[in-house]
Amino acid sequence: MLELRLVQGSLLKKVLEAIRDLVTDANFDCSGTGFSLQAMDSSHVALVALLLRSEGFEHYRCDRNLSMGMNLNNMAKMLRCAGNDDIITIKADDGSDTVTFMFESPNQDKIADFEMKLMDIDSEHLGIPDSEYQAIVRMPSSEFSRICKDLSSIGDTVVISVTKEGVKFSTAGDIGTANIVCRQNKTVDKPEEATIIEMQEPVSLTFALRYMNSFTKASPLSDQVTISLSSELPVVVEYKIAEMGYIRFYLAPKIEEDEEMKS
Amino acid sequence: MLELRLVQGSLLKKVLEAIRDLVTDANFDCSGTGFSLQAMDSSHVALVALLLRSEGFEHYRCDRNLSMGMNLNNMAKMLRCAGNDDIITIKADDGSDTVTFMFESPNQDKIADFEMKLMDIDSEHLGIPDSEYQAIVRMPSSEFSRICKDLSSIGDTVVISVTKEGVKFSTAGDIGTANIVCRQNKTVDKPEEATIIEMQEPVSLTFALRYMNSFTKASPLSDQVTISLSSELPVVVEYKIAEMGYIRFYLAPKIEEDEEMKS
Amino acid sequence: MLELRLVQGSLLKKVLEAIRDLVTDANFDCSGTGFSLQAMDSSHVALVALLLRSEGFEHYRCDRNLSMGMNLNNMAKMLRCAGNDDIITIKADDGSDTVTFMFESPNQDKIADFEMKLMDIDSEHLGIPDSEYQAIVRMPSSEFSRICKDLSSIGDTVVISVTKEGVKFSTAGDIGTANIVCRQNKTVDKPEEATIIEMQEPVSLTFALRYMNSFTKASPLSDQVTISLSSELPVVVEYKIAEMGYIRFYLAPKIEEDEEMKS
Repeated sequence: MLELRLVQGSLLKKVLEAIRDLVTDANFDCSGTGFSLQAMDSSHVALVALLLRSEGFEHYRCDRNLSMGMNLNNMAKMLRCAGNDDIITIKADDGSDTVTFMFESPNQDKIADFEMKLMDIDSEHLGIPDSEYQAIVRMPSSEFSRICKDLSSIGDTVVISVTKEGVKFSTAGDIGTANIVCRQNKTVDKPEEATIIEMQEPVSLTFALRYMNSFTKASPLSDQVTISLSSELPVVVEYKIAEMGYIRFYLAPKIEEDEEMKS
Repeated sequence: MLELRLVQGSLLKKVLEAIRDLVTDANFDCSGTGFSLQAMDSSHVALVALLLRSEGFEHYRCDRNLSMGMNLNNMAKMLRCAGNDDIITIKADDGSDTVTFMFESPNQDKIADFEMKLMDIDSEHLGIPDSEYQAIVRMPSSEFSRICKDLSSIGDTVVISVTKEGVKFSTAGDIGTANIVCRQNKTVDKPEEATIIEMQEPVSLTFALRYMNSFTKASPLSDQVTISLSSELPVVVEYKIAEMGYIRFYLAPKIEEDEEMKS
Repeated sequence: MLELRLVQGSLLKKVLEAIRDLVTDANFDCSGTGFSLQAMDSSHVALVALLLRSEGFEHYRCDRNLSMGMNLNNMAKMLRCAGNDDIITIKADDGSDTVTFMFESPNQDKIADFEMKLMDIDSEHLGIPDSEYQAIVRMPSSEFSRICKDLSSIGDTVVISVTKEGVKFSTAGDIGTANIVCRQNKTVDKPEEATIIEMQEPVSLTFALRYMNSFTKASPLSDQVTISLSSELPVVVEYKIAEMGYIRFYLAPKIEEDEEMKS
């Protein structure tokens, strides 16, 4: 039997909105450690990894490891019915082919339960090794989101270049070119407004803006985003989920004459 | 001659938005008692009844009973031109085939008059007898609206079940099932947040969500909605209009093998 | 070399949104006097004239007169990437076929430069003589905008009639007629709410609402709009740009049996 009670239910709503753009069907894995998901996007280019640690739940009961295949659009339809202040409980009986989402309003006046059919989804779990990165940029998630959106109006790809002084986002398209430079800034009034660069060596990599824009749907989960870059590795775009875990997006850099992602 | 002056003109704008979804053309009836309307929706399934009592108008002159056929979309187009703080006056000469809506801004700087052609509309006025209901639920109109909207993302019909403890709204669809229970709650800080159940005997009835969602367009008119249920009668969904009257929607329950309303 | 630094960059964003609806491609002319534009709309019915005087810029360097042909949609795409508090600098090298827009965030943490290709656009500059008008109406720009929008839901043209007491906007369409009268009002608490009429003789002229609605896109630039009317002249709809200049729209009145503008 599975019973996971999350007081800050809005968090689960935000998680769904963050990944729904990228992934249609996915297995949610429950174990003693936490509630997690790993899935490729439908074109098998980007990977998303989610972890909500068991300690973050008010109540976490998971008698045995369980993998629940869900259609994320249907799941999102149900979670949208939860109020932003509702407590959400995820429940499943052993061997059942359904999962139940229970929503309790803060004053307990309104209790809703939504039962959703589960799906069988083939998936292989990739081991993602811990890596060293040439450069790690931490910046306000809203700023990163705005930059990706702005550049999309000019071009299809973004070149992210990191130097000690700052990070540059560049694009080019039919109507012209654009460069946006964010300078390192550690001395801000609010820590969530800082832009901090940890760099071993300068790096410059190209990515499809379409995927970057999908990743930024996770911005409501965290004030800051961390972008980890190395020439030989997929970029990791990470949004921490306060006291619970993270959502991470992985995307391989585009190499020269790599045209297959162009729309 | 007809001249009805309504200081809180926004109220008439809200009335139009409340019924425009359901009814295309309708007769507005003016008499000494007030300004009223009774109309079936275009598929002849639901009935709407409106009453704005003469006492609610700052000035109410109606020399003889008058029935004015109006296209509600056109009427809404005109009323949308009134500011939310405007005073609205409805004027018609005896025997005229037009009606005039006059809008006065609060400081009298701007005066608009919109003249609309009237239509001949056949209609029969149904006598609606006062009835006893097995259960009457009074609850926040925003809550009822949210529930109908939420359930529509899962199924096409709602089962409303009333017991002493509360009212349950249920639906089922391809992706799963949903139950939302609102408990009776009389001890709230603000009276408009109360959920109050008057029950003679338990009742459980099924309705098309499509119509329920149309009815909830009247929510801006009132903080509370009253739902009156009996197995042998159409449900009455009523929104009171402060110090003036009401808007009531009637809808027959669906019976088993009653499939004609399924979309 | 050209370098124009505008501290209140949002102003340039608003200018673009104001004219983009009417004009697709246009030459921006830079001289010692200022940054200006004159263009006909694509159907050659309305004329727009913009002036931003050099004194309004924090820094204004224009070594020689320069005419830069720009696609306004592309320019708007780039300017939308500027934050509302950003400082905008327009830069062009002599003989270059590109222009650069530089956006600096208030705290200088983020610097963006957008380079856009210029176009060759044929245009003739019309001399617009100063004229005497029969009537000049000054009124809140939001009010004028609202009136044009409201009347558009009823008819295609507006008759603007000015008397000493006020200005009347009228239209007629299939569903009825509408008249909106704004009275002269000089004794308001806030000067931007005044409606002031300077009249030599009464005047009544008819215009296509489609163009008037386009002109009102300039409302964010100014709290007040000035409408100058004479029977033998195009109307001038002017929005002042504080301490910098103006944007003016010219439109010929419709004459009887003048049907070519009807949509």
